[in-house]
Amino acid sequence: MTGLRAAVLGTGSWGTTFAAVLADAGCDVALWGRRDDVCHDITVEHRNEEYLPGIELPAGLRASTDAEEVLDAADLVVVAIPSQSARATLEPLADHVPAGAIAVSLMKGVELTSDRRMSQVVAEALGVAYDRVAVVSGPNLAREIAERQPTATVVAAVEEGTAQLVAGACATGYFRPYTNTDVVGVELCGAAKNVIALAVGIAQGRGLGYNTMATVITRGLVEITRLGLALGADAETFPGLAGMGDLMATCASPLSRNHTLGSHLGQGLTLEQAIAVTGGTAEGVKSSRSILELATSVGVEMPIAEAVVAVLHEGLPVDELAPRLLGRPHRAEGL
Amino acid sequence: MTGLRAAVLGTGSWGTTFAAVLADAGCDVALWGRRDDVCHDITVEHRNEEYLPGIELPAGLRASTDAEEVLDAADLVVVAIPSQSARATLEPLADHVPAGAIAVSLMKGVELTSDRRMSQVVAEALGVAYDRVAVVSGPNLAREIAERQPTATVVAAVEEGTAQLVAGACATGYFRPYTNTDVVGVELCGAAKNVIALAVGIAQGRGLGYNTMATVITRGLVEITRLGLALGADAETFPGLAGMGDLMATCASPLSRNHTLGSHLGQGLTLEQAIAVTGGTAEGVKSSRSILELATSVGVEMPIAEAVVAVLHEGLPVDELAPRLLGRPHRAEGL
Repeated sequence: MTGLRAAVLGTGSWGTTFAAVLADAGCDVALWGRRDDVCHDITVEHRNEEYLPGIELPAGLRASTDAEEVLDAADLVVVAIPSQSARATLEPLADHVPAGAIAVSLMKGVELTSDRRMSQVVAEALGVAYDRVAVVSGPNLAREIAERQPTATVVAAVEEGTAQLVAGACATGYFRPYTNTDVVGVELCGAAKNVIALAVGIAQGRGLGYNTMATVITRGLVEITRLGLALGADAETFPGLAGMGDLMATCASPLSRNHTLGSHLGQGLTLEQAIAVTGGTAEGVKSSRSILELATSVGVEMPIAEAVVAVLHEGLPVDELAPRLLGRPHRAEGL
Repeated sequence: MTGLRAAVLGTGSWGTTFAAVLADAGCDVALWGRRDDVCHDITVEHRNEEYLPGIELPAGLRASTDAEEVLDAADLVVVAIPSQSARATLEPLADHVPAGAIAVSLMKGVELTSDRRMSQVVAEALGVAYDRVAVVSGPNLAREIAERQPTATVVAAVEEGTAQLVAGACATGYFRPYTNTDVVGVELCGAAKNVIALAVGIAQGRGLGYNTMATVITRGLVEITRLGLALGADAETFPGLAGMGDLMATCASPLSRNHTLGSHLGQGLTLEQAIAVTGGTAEGVKSSRSILELATSVGVEMPIAEAVVAVLHEGLPVDELAPRLLGRPHRAEGL
């Protein structure tokens, strides 16, 4: 038993799964959600059939629509809600966050209106000091963790002690956290990976195999690393679990929306058609331009991201992707 | 046209494929093989039905069992023969290697009798100065390259000029070489990847999914990197194409013997049974102990390789693999 009390905001698949991990690690865990039926299902049936069908949750988990009750005396406040609405959802809850609580962001991406990273949004919206905010990121497909399959993850915070406390709170026999103080690098990986997942999807949609996939992921990670170094991140983060690890799990899983949408583009659909067939857009479609603008602003070359943007937004035929990427002047490997 | 003349020793799938790449890049290419029928098939039918069924080879490729003829006036001598018999095969050919030729090793692994890397074996056996030896390694499943699917690779040589010359000789619209001067790192990646592929196979044989796969590959690469740094390699090589790239392609491909054998172990077969079902042993079974001994000799911890050796050679049940790896003391990410 860690003896810690955790409030998890969000009852989607990742919030519910991480709540189960915390409970298995010995925390006293409550979830906050907006929907009565989902909260009832979690508390009474020990299930979340809507987001994790067939999974039995730890009996101790309880969920409520009353944020004040859920946040009462919480040592950890874990946030797993849609990233673009996070600030608006969190601000009204700030008053209920106990003084001294640590906030944990499970969210990926960047707030598009402000270009703030999710840890910054959480700190600002909940009024938590930034050295008491951690982010969790890694090869963490929620469903597989909910099935208690072995995985590792990164818990990052600018203050090592914060990361260690969160790591201790979520370590179980199937979930192994590693600490890291490079929050910028970890969050950049989470935001940029979807652009690479789109590129891998396009290649697979063209019928290309494992060499191309591995090449796109490897060289994609090089460009993300280059951008990260320009932004002050640590080079070691990128080949780690939040970088390469997450990218590999995302690109291997048939469930990734970015991957699926890319695959439709690779088969020759237009962006509009691909979005329609995928049943909605994907994170990388929105973020690819932001990432590229960021890269341009700091003078970093990202040929794969550029090519993805050209396909998505500038009508570059997918057939011209490979010649464009492979025809560049030769160079040494590395950053 | 590069105008270079290349002799490729070996008519297996990788030797034949790389010969086709060189020919597509504009080299004048001859292959040397032991078998008349295969040489005839390549020269007359422009095919190598035994090793690359269904692939049409460039019309200019020719093959012969006469090494002297093949090596005549060669600028590049490319070696793609079984690694453990390479020295004995190459030594009798040394006299026919033109003075000033560059040697290129396509081979992976370490000569078990001497612990020499393949580039060293090639240099010694052919009598070529080490600064004129290059190695080629990356996410390079032969069949996919023979189908002209886009991929990248690393051409490594201690002398950058040697690497650049070889890179120029093999660059085509579908094959993109990057140069690197870290030959030790590139060759270590090629030798150690099979141990990690075995571990990934075991996990998949247990029915585990993408998180576990990505975790094993990511943390596996961290241990290989640690070993590499102790041996004087460059940290940047490992997340590159010869490290992460090759590891990913190997672990994703259902054709990898290490992966297949690991998968049988994961399903509960003994090593003997798994070897029987796989139809022979796999490189990683032999090399895992050598890698671990090397790591021990330089004081580097490799928990995944240790666990693989324990399963292969010390009767550790596969069920105990995950608890053993995940139950270690927590630590920071990184090297």
